[in-house]
Amino acid sequence: MTLRAEILAFGDELLHGALLDTNSKWLAGQLEAVGLTVERFTVTGDDPTLVRAVIAEACARADVVVATGGLGPTLDDRTRDVVAELLGGPLEFHAPSWERTRAWLSQRGRPVPESNRRQAMLPPGGTALDNPVGTAPGFRVRIGRATLFALPGVPREMQQMLRDHVLPFVAALPGLMPTAQSWLRVLGPSEAALGERIEPFMVPGRNPAVGITASGGLLTVRIVASAPSRADAESLCHATAADLRPLLGEWLFAEGTTELPEAVAARFALARRTLAFAESCTGGALADRLVAVPGVSAVFRGGLVAYHDDAKRQLLGVPALLLAAHGAVSEPVAAAMAAGARERFGADVAVATTGIAGPDGGSPQKPVGTVCFALARPGAVRAWTVRIADLGRAFVRDRAVFEVWRTLLQEPLDG
Amino acid sequence: MTLRAEILAFGDELLHGALLDTNSKWLAGQLEAVGLTVERFTVTGDDPTLVRAVIAEACARADVVVATGGLGPTLDDRTRDVVAELLGGPLEFHAPSWERTRAWLSQRGRPVPESNRRQAMLPPGGTALDNPVGTAPGFRVRIGRATLFALPGVPREMQQMLRDHVLPFVAALPGLMPTAQSWLRVLGPSEAALGERIEPFMVPGRNPAVGITASGGLLTVRIVASAPSRADAESLCHATAADLRPLLGEWLFAEGTTELPEAVAARFALARRTLAFAESCTGGALADRLVAVPGVSAVFRGGLVAYHDDAKRQLLGVPALLLAAHGAVSEPVAAAMAAGARERFGADVAVATTGIAGPDGGSPQKPVGTVCFALARPGAVRAWTVRIADLGRAFVRDRAVFEVWRTLLQEPLDG
Repeated sequence: MTLRAEILAFGDELLHGALLDTNSKWLAGQLEAVGLTVERFTVTGDDPTLVRAVIAEACARADVVVATGGLGPTLDDRTRDVVAELLGGPLEFHAPSWERTRAWLSQRGRPVPESNRRQAMLPPGGTALDNPVGTAPGFRVRIGRATLFALPGVPREMQQMLRDHVLPFVAALPGLMPTAQSWLRVLGPSEAALGERIEPFMVPGRNPAVGITASGGLLTVRIVASAPSRADAESLCHATAADLRPLLGEWLFAEGTTELPEAVAARFALARRTLAFAESCTGGALADRLVAVPGVSAVFRGGLVAYHDDAKRQLLGVPALLLAAHGAVSEPVAAAMAAGARERFGADVAVATTGIAGPDGGSPQKPVGTVCFALARPGAVRAWTVRIADLGRAFVRDRAVFEVWRTLLQEPLDG
Repeated sequence: MTLRAEILAFGDELLHGALLDTNSKWLAGQLEAVGLTVERFTVTGDDPTLVRAVIAEACARADVVVATGGLGPTLDDRTRDVVAELLGGPLEFHAPSWERTRAWLSQRGRPVPESNRRQAMLPPGGTALDNPVGTAPGFRVRIGRATLFALPGVPREMQQMLRDHVLPFVAALPGLMPTAQSWLRVLGPSEAALGERIEPFMVPGRNPAVGITASGGLLTVRIVASAPSRADAESLCHATAADLRPLLGEWLFAEGTTELPEAVAARFALARRTLAFAESCTGGALADRLVAVPGVSAVFRGGLVAYHDDAKRQLLGVPALLLAAHGAVSEPVAAAMAAGARERFGADVAVATTGIAGPDGGSPQKPVGTVCFALARPGAVRAWTVRIADLGRAFVRDRAVFEVWRTLLQEPLDG
């Protein structure tokens, strides 16, 4: 037996293209870790008819339903009203919640709008769920055989309330089937080639299940096991991972949720090498992604965003003649940028990028998407050019960033 | 009468927390612009029973259903099989699609795995949809009174195929009700305070509908109008926007889909001022977001990611004594960083950030979340400190970035 969960997200802003629903993905990971089987996410807007239908259908299918959004102080927030209608009773004013909201706002010196009073209303039979980091309380209520948790849509508030109120309740349910995941991160083959290599593992109904995810130039082999205990699920995962590793060979560059910048930071930390960047077209993206890795200061010396040619000359020492002779987007300039950054930041390795991200600036010789790279290491600088497809400025910049991580994972770091 | 649409996304990687579904949001914007009313998104995994249920239910409710994912070459991709089952017939081999896939792979010098042959199978009555940028063709098929479009999950391929095959088909349907949107971007009030100010506009059933979205410290007032023609819908939007502007007053900082970095770039371009950054804890994020704005080279001179104290000293000229006396995270050091960046990049305005993003490095005097900022302009440098709540490294960095955009939008740029 498994306990089934569904995740709902409400808000016109989600349905009408203004905001991406990031809550459902995060919730799924949390709920699956404690042993629920997440079967669906549903997103709809603020229309009460649709919100009611979505809640009623999910509660008819699942054991646990977690909904986010629609709990705000304004009139377009309708989760409470709709749940009261489904349960056939009026909303009830919950004085302690109102007191908490007033105190929360007053402590911060903010006005206490009367409209916040709406947030202290509870559907019949509902239990209020404290919001320690905001004004919108949530609630838990039984609808048929399902337990519905309604949480605010603000990620920070929702996450805290899931930990405080939902996970402890769920963990006490009988019949849980905990799951464990292992991820093997792969760089190199096409999805089809990888699929052929591991096809015997990708059989429907296998436990652990093995699947492939493609994202941003990377492939991930996902292993998901379920078992009556978390420890058993983890053992199953580890056994399948051990079977897969020899099949993946050199393609395997990292395990777990490691992203490329983390893998680069780990590789440089292990080799005790330091790194610096000189970025033109990537414009700080390399530094930004690397600095997102905790503890990266042991590895990262710094970076220069030399967006203007003056900065390339004055701060990186790129000779003006080189810029004049070859143009800013050229291998000689990339090489001079990398060498300059390596020296000025006192790093072992420096990478430079200079390219045409578009939409303007392309020419027949150097169309939009032309990016020159250079890597400087002790005693050697090498430069190369990649023609990235012109699929938009963000695409060109992302691919250029990917090319740098790929290089830094594969470049020899010794000597 | 309106034509109703639903959007489906399939893939274990979406359901089990490995990958965020960004396709549905994008699709919703495209489908609504041509006049469909999008009512729901549903995400489920690769389990064929769930995929079948989700497709059957959506096709029973909606006129147009667009599904992404589950069309890959590997065994966990099941959309084709499930649709054939729903229609009660076997999959049919579509030779032209197979030839196209073979040609596509061969032209790129890639092997042609036999497993790609699966992608050339069509459900009964289905029409193949060419994929000009990948190997997975899609298909269009009638299920009951609904038209189902099945597209690959790779965003670039999906987007191209929507433009080529879906939008022209949908635009020819009778009974469309085009919509238009206007967004007013607001900086300053709480959501409740903004809601009270514009409450008369937030009535259920109003056309245009007016709603509030909160995201990353910003509020957006969304206006969505529908009318028999796109032009009428736009007029309705514009009229409501004109009514709202005086109510918003100084809170209104931009219109449309303008994000903060775009608004900053536009403000500096208008004032003919240039900008540079010296980033420590934000680590290139300011430069990265600003460089994402097309045409920013007129405004942005460059930035230095001075992650290591050596870089603060040698590249920005921060005196070693200042670092020793006050520590790297201090207002005097922030001020020296800003002044150094302004001078070295030859910019009119420079902003510096230095702070403790965590998880390590905090102290009782300077806990994690302490961030010092400085802004240098001709003849003046001002520094200030913000204590950001310690809700994780990414949160601290995001809030620090927000503080800089807020400052650059509100700081006087004259004199």
